[in-house]
Amino acid sequence: MNYQRFFEEAIAQLHDERRYRVFANLERIVGRFPQAIWRSEGEAREITVWCSNDYLGMGQHPDVISASQNAAGSMGTGAGGTRNISGTNHPLVELEEELADLHSKEAGLVFTSGFVSNEAAISTIGRLLPNCLILSDELNHASMIEGVRRSGAEKKIFRHNDVTHLESLLQQAGKERAKLIVFESVYSMDGDIAPIEKIVELAEKYNAMTYIDEVHAVGMYGARGGGITERDGLAHRIDVIEGTLAKAFGALGGYITGTREVIDAVRSYAPGFIFTTALPPSIAAAATASIRHLKASSVEREGQQRQAQRTKDVLAAADLPVMPSETHIVPLLVGDPELCKMASDRLLAKHNIYIQPINYPTVPRGTERLRITPTPCHDDALIDVLKDALVETWTALGIPFRDVAAPREPARSDRIVPLVVSQAGG
Amino acid sequence: MNYQRFFEEAIAQLHDERRYRVFANLERIVGRFPQAIWRSEGEAREITVWCSNDYLGMGQHPDVISASQNAAGSMGTGAGGTRNISGTNHPLVELEEELADLHSKEAGLVFTSGFVSNEAAISTIGRLLPNCLILSDELNHASMIEGVRRSGAEKKIFRHNDVTHLESLLQQAGKERAKLIVFESVYSMDGDIAPIEKIVELAEKYNAMTYIDEVHAVGMYGARGGGITERDGLAHRIDVIEGTLAKAFGALGGYITGTREVIDAVRSYAPGFIFTTALPPSIAAAATASIRHLKASSVEREGQQRQAQRTKDVLAAADLPVMPSETHIVPLLVGDPELCKMASDRLLAKHNIYIQPINYPTVPRGTERLRITPTPCHDDALIDVLKDALVETWTALGIPFRDVAAPREPARSDRIVPLVVSQAGG
Ligand SMILES: Cc1ncc(COP(=O)(O)O)c(C=O)c1O
Ligand SMILES: Cc1ncc(COP(=O)(O)O)c(C=O)c1O
Repeated sequence: MNYQRFFEEAIAQLHDERRYRVFANLERIVGRFPQAIWRSEGEAREITVWCSNDYLGMGQHPDVISASQNAAGSMGTGAGGTRNISGTNHPLVELEEELADLHSKEAGLVFTSGFVSNEAAISTIGRLLPNCLILSDELNHASMIEGVRRSGAEKKIFRHNDVTHLESLLQQAGKERAKLIVFESVYSMDGDIAPIEKIVELAEKYNAMTYIDEVHAVGMYGARGGGITERDGLAHRIDVIEGTLAKAFGALGGYITGTREVIDAVRSYAPGFIFTTALPPSIAAAATASIRHLKASSVEREGQQRQAQRTKDVLAAADLPVMPSETHIVPLLVGDPELCKMASDRLLAKHNIYIQPINYPTVPRGTERLRITPTPCHDDALIDVLKDALVETWTALGIPFRDVAAPREPARSDRIVPLVVSQAGG
Repeated sequence: MNYQRFFEEAIAQLHDERRYRVFANLERIVGRFPQAIWRSEGEAREITVWCSNDYLGMGQHPDVISASQNAAGSMGTGAGGTRNISGTNHPLVELEEELADLHSKEAGLVFTSGFVSNEAAISTIGRLLPNCLILSDELNHASMIEGVRRSGAEKKIFRHNDVTHLESLLQQAGKERAKLIVFESVYSMDGDIAPIEKIVELAEKYNAMTYIDEVHAVGMYGARGGGITERDGLAHRIDVIEGTLAKAFGALGGYITGTREVIDAVRSYAPGFIFTTALPPSIAAAATASIRHLKASSVEREGQQRQAQRTKDVLAAADLPVMPSETHIVPLLVGDPELCKMASDRLLAKHNIYIQPINYPTVPRGTERLRITPTPCHDDALIDVLKDALVETWTALGIPFRDVAAPREPARSDRIVPLVVSQAGG
């Protein structure tokens, strides 16, 4: 065994398959989001970021920044311990109360990330419940898949958003068996929304627990930013609502909310929660400030919806192949991995616009795309500049416009989704 | 299945077994570490923290705090994306270079926590290497155990720090087979140190890869804070050195360092690295400031060693049962879970001293202890106050002093360590 050679070859293989990733080195500019400084090999240039998941620009909100700075200034930069051994800082306790209130639940629990919250909570619930069957949407995020796998529980995958398929699986399992349905509200690569009410009805009919990932919806939907479950008045019918503090809330960390007992069980039994340092006061305070602001203010939500709709309209009017999306996410079909990468490179080199290409395995082959995320900070002028840059790029690279090849919805049920590097977000 | 009742019973069981944990709600006071405000049911009191893993008090260092505040002020509170999709912020790139330099390695990679770094890196290396055998110290941390499990690789556990046992396992496996030895430098509950040089020699002899967790040593050992491997001149003979930014460096996050190719492989293949939001600029900048400071300054390291030694000496002179420890960690034997909890409660209620009790399953039954972590901020007067409080508590509760029951080293080889909630740190 030659270890060094082995890893060299593992990397070479990624290059061969054109799957080797180079991360863009960015320095965002507070007060001027979505502008950022992009650095590469000595060069430094100002660019416009069009693919951030700081969906509402809350990461630059003065209240959020000063909450972070004040907490660091008065309590220090780290938590100094795990939750059980001196790490439970006061801002974290306040944050958990804020989150419980956000989703009208009894209790909340914060993790170091949304990834860890899914992995730790799903695996712990699935492991605790005797002979549990986990029913998991086929397009669930990698973190949920990891949670399902690590639970050790039997799992059945249901076709994406397919309640008929889900019902047949529930029926087979029977009412007595412990069952956990695991799904997302907004699926982040296509921007579609789960049939939450139908799923909840099935869960009630067949006595299943429900676990929803609202990572791409919290802060952005519902009168107080409680997500799609708030918007649709369904939060009280879901057992566990999971979310992140790192996207619309502009900070870091993940969480779950639910009844006091479910939350307490995860708190007490999940290694991924127990054996790790707690989030620092500065992060917790920033998240709380952001959540509080978005509970009271709808300006950011409305601005985002407006600019997302305008982006869709302007790009579609230029015959750019905007894929159908019910949400704030604007996917633009390229349909070829090389072209997708080339389009992204050209946008950056020639137009100072940064949009990361999304290729297989994050999305199915043939649906390679640019995933555009307009924020309230992307004003009308920026949208027009984007449109012109895209038209130039589409033309120069010969990527099909809308009239040439109408955007086609992928046939979801026969997507081949490898377990590990499956979904979204990476 | 009644889910609510099920979780109620799971919690009741913890109460019955006296394993239910209540987290201390703390607000540390910058400029006055180790002092903190402790809150409970409306009450708020100033106490002294004696069990923080902010081992050097770097979380209150002015350079570290201002690095955090400045980065938040100029770049915002969140990263806004995964590493691949707009989340790679400039301070994070600088941090990875700083870490590579710290351990004299080619490359570094930062994760959201030390837990995630172990889980993601060990599982990915173990999964990538064909037919890999993982050799794991029996007292490894929960995060390493999770990594080993999720690799899907065959594993063999060697007795704690037992190189004879390790050699026999290596011999059995043969030179050709891919092998990964996974161990820690400082074991945090006993404060003992692995025989690193012997393990490295065996790895070289039998052609195994080595992976060391230096979480409880980075910042604190070695001329520049590179850990025990730096102190002992062994860093270049170890393949992967892992550490945390959340203990001696006073921030948040974890990392690995190694050759460009190993690091690149983990970067490219680990779901726990790929599918999660990057650390914010403020955290990365704080960590970098802390590492840089500790590369140049030994004042904190020397202060910690001095105060740890003085604490051991003063407590031992009062016949308190200090357990043997080669490091900065000062474990004090209680030997009974109820008494351990009562001692901790009494110290807090009567003496305003906070030391979390460490009970089974974090440590073996019969070795329940108070784990004391002196920092350079714990001055001589505080040590004397601690000693008096401990003597009062030991006397009041009838806990054996040193002359009554000499501290006994647990017989490590027959420790029963359950897989999930095994080790340290929670
Ligand atoms: C659906 C979904 N869930 C969870 C996560 C993980 O959240 P976090 O970035 O906070 O780890 C992501 C992406 O990052 C996601 O897309
Ligand atoms: C040995 C060891 N490794 C890893 C970790 C995890 O590091 P972090 O707190 O950064 O997640 C801990 C404790 O927290 C630990 O004790």
